[in-house]
Amino acid sequence: MSGLQVLLVAGTHGNEINGPWLLDQWSQTPELINTHGVGVVPVIGNPEALALGRRYLDCDLNRSFRLDLLRSPSILDREVVRAKQLLSFFGPEGSTPCQIVIDLHSTTSAMGSTLVVYGRRSVDLALAALIQARLGLPIYLHDGDDDQQGFLVERWPCGLVIEIGPVPQGLLKARIIEQTRLAVQACLEALSSVASGSPTYPDEFVVHSHLGSLDLPRDALGQPAACVHPSLQGRDWQPLQMGAPLFLWPDGEVFRFEGRDSPIPVFINEAAYVEKHIAMSLTCREVCPLPEQWQGALQQLVDC
Amino acid sequence: MSGLQVLLVAGTHGNEINGPWLLDQWSQTPELINTHGVGVVPVIGNPEALALGRRYLDCDLNRSFRLDLLRSPSILDREVVRAKQLLSFFGPEGSTPCQIVIDLHSTTSAMGSTLVVYGRRSVDLALAALIQARLGLPIYLHDGDDDQQGFLVERWPCGLVIEIGPVPQGLLKARIIEQTRLAVQACLEALSSVASGSPTYPDEFVVHSHLGSLDLPRDALGQPAACVHPSLQGRDWQPLQMGAPLFLWPDGEVFRFEGRDSPIPVFINEAAYVEKHIAMSLTCREVCPLPEQWQGALQQLVDC
Repeated sequence: MSGLQVLLVAGTHGNEINGPWLLDQWSQTPELINTHGVGVVPVIGNPEALALGRRYLDCDLNRSFRLDLLRSPSILDREVVRAKQLLSFFGPEGSTPCQIVIDLHSTTSAMGSTLVVYGRRSVDLALAALIQARLGLPIYLHDGDDDQQGFLVERWPCGLVIEIGPVPQGLLKARIIEQTRLAVQACLEALSSVASGSPTYPDEFVVHSHLGSLDLPRDALGQPAACVHPSLQGRDWQPLQMGAPLFLWPDGEVFRFEGRDSPIPVFINEAAYVEKHIAMSLTCREVCPLPEQWQGALQQLVDC
Repeated sequence: MSGLQVLLVAGTHGNEINGPWLLDQWSQTPELINTHGVGVVPVIGNPEALALGRRYLDCDLNRSFRLDLLRSPSILDREVVRAKQLLSFFGPEGSTPCQIVIDLHSTTSAMGSTLVVYGRRSVDLALAALIQARLGLPIYLHDGDDDQQGFLVERWPCGLVIEIGPVPQGLLKARIIEQTRLAVQACLEALSSVASGSPTYPDEFVVHSHLGSLDLPRDALGQPAACVHPSLQGRDWQPLQMGAPLFLWPDGEVFRFEGRDSPIPVFINEAAYVEKHIAMSLTCREVCPLPEQWQGALQQLVDC
């Protein structure tokens, strides 16, 4: 087996407690997660926020990995300090260097089990395609969104987010824990197959590519003036037809979708995105070929 | 119409945002809630916590109405200070005196729309019975629980909690808002019928009376060591048979219910109760006659 070390992060957001609980139980019961021989370094992303049951203390840790923030010595937000610390410990040049990162998240939206990839790095997409071929997970390709930057996984040579939902913040749910466990195992199994030289890559894979986000209608003070229409709640991954109800005003009036091309909504009514002015994101389905050189790039990284 | 003033509180817990949103919209659109001619004073219970999206700042406001806390000049917890303030403004001897309080809450558990009554005050039960006869809402009678004291409604001559769920903390949901609106209207319609001398009381009513609470199994550090079994999740109000799965250990082992008498569980996996060591509460169903003197007591209060 290679010298590959996979950083497995949970609790990047301190109110997403199912991943941290899984890691905690795993430390006591090693059989819980079959690593398939892959070296795994588990870590809690934001232990201070987790202890308080809050998403973050000063700012979102999963937007704190922007290079300008990391390079600035004057920014003292606790999450930026923590981002630097995680990199100095576990970054590719850290004291315990990891080449690949898996970052565990949960959501109040009905995303099921989803892989999230940031940008179009060949190694990320090769790994996601390999996992999709094994477990059928959808891939949300978050790309070209200038408003959302500084994600943790971007600072490692290869990295994926696993998003599981729906689950309220701060609540343990057995099904969510089990879905998280299965997704982690699928990632490690895929990496193990690469390390042992026997990966079964698909010829092509499906991504849902980020088009943009919609916000709730807001009042003059910037507060939500309508809410997600009940017929849309929980309908992540189902194409949005022109005229479909989007938002419901208090007086019963309905705000409808006026766009074309039936985009596919994701992260519908994620609690933490209200402050980011995102009521849902829209995606389009793309079938992508998987070039051999992407497979080679992942092989090279795993064989480090 | 009498001089009755009903205090309508939302946001007693700052992360339960659907009630506050309803009050906010109501202030802009008076038709939203038909008060049936009853005088209503709307107020946000914990505006500072609501602004931060947190349940509370220093301690739970809805446990801060204990007489010993209210009488102590030395306790400076912001919620205790706020409790005193609410009483000095809107208490029965306050500057804007209210005789009856309705306190709006939401829960991550599948409680549907529930009335919660604290103790067995005749006026509370008469009002709850009247609402149950109109809208069929279940009544959870929280009584004889020495560990949980100091609820807001207890400091008014008459008061009910309306609990609506399931909904994550910090998330607007159209259905939850509508359920809250309907329950508030039913309360006000019932009070209006009393004020106009035409209430239709039932001969008897049904309560689910608190028996006790069960906690998750905990580890040596006091952290949850198992989670609510997925087959129990969302099954509030459904009798618990001996041998039914309660909790699931990480290794897949099942902790089963060993009690008798098929108690009825409520507040299964409410996120905020983990810190109170409550994974669910158990109740028994009671059919209670509604004595005429209870009706008279409510009539007297409403005719103030």
